[in-house]
Amino acid sequence: MGLFSKDIQTMDDLYLHTLEDIYYAEQQIEKALHKMIDKASDGALKEAFEKHLQETKDQLQRLEDVFSILDKKPKGVNCPAIDGIIKEADELSKEIGDEKVLDAALAAAAQAVEHYEMARYGTLIAWSQEMGRTECADILKRTLAEEEAADKKLTQIAEKRLNKAP
Amino acid sequence: MGLFSKDIQTMDDLYLHTLEDIYYAEQQIEKALHKMIDKASDGALKEAFEKHLQETKDQLQRLEDVFSILDKKPKGVNCPAIDGIIKEADELSKEIGDEKVLDAALAAAAQAVEHYEMARYGTLIAWSQEMGRTECADILKRTLAEEEAADKKLTQIAEKRLNKAP
Repeated sequence: MGLFSKDIQTMDDLYLHTLEDIYYAEQQIEKALHKMIDKASDGALKEAFEKHLQETKDQLQRLEDVFSILDKKPKGVNCPAIDGIIKEADELSKEIGDEKVLDAALAAAAQAVEHYEMARYGTLIAWSQEMGRTECADILKRTLAEEEAADKKLTQIAEKRLNKAP
Repeated sequence: MGLFSKDIQTMDDLYLHTLEDIYYAEQQIEKALHKMIDKASDGALKEAFEKHLQETKDQLQRLEDVFSILDKKPKGVNCPAIDGIIKEADELSKEIGDEKVLDAALAAAAQAVEHYEMARYGTLIAWSQEMGRTECADILKRTLAEEEAADKKLTQIAEKRLNKAP
């Protein structure tokens, strides 16, 4: 959409824009997770990232299903929010020497990513319900449940092991 | 901290860096909220933003209290994540003509901000507990509870009124 051109006139437009935003975000998250798996040392953390990589692929497919219900072609729009969250994680991880401290930072970065997704899916589910798009809401709820579970898992891992770093 | 200089060696360093990250973020959120209050049309939404502006000021003070407990001077570090989240909200709002649609977008943007804060405070609380910094954990928990309440309030407002937009 063109900047400053007031392209978003209706809730339908805003809904589609937000769908395109999270579609782009999931694509960037998929790329970032590959790097995070490489950087992680702790076995449980690596495993949690690998599981979430598979979930992210499923979530992209679900978004494509929602685009299809709306009779729209899946496409992403630039999302400075996820770009910023990933950039911050990237920059921070380059400043860290110790592998246990790096694991703690990676887990925290992943939780910031999960929370961004939770916010966007929460919004899309609320709008789907208001707009009578029950099928879309049901699909997106499955993803939101996965994001919440992934966030909880990371908290458990962080509390159990990573924070024993120097 | 200098990029690529491996300035973060210990959990103490990472904890301080994350504190400085959220301190900068809260300062940017305070500025952004002023603009969002101006842009919002719905009375309940405007009121929620005004309440959260006051809370943000309290939260900055609480962060200063945590810095003080650690015997550190409060300072912010560059936080591309919050910059990206605010930039996205700013760009999007310029594309929207209808005021009800704009209100829905502003509420959604605010929820993305809240979720970023929830992620960071959640992490800092977990680390505080692990590191035996009970007093810091208690202070940060008050802020986390406010963020969660602000997020819930925005969901309620969104569900009740804003989504009745065209």
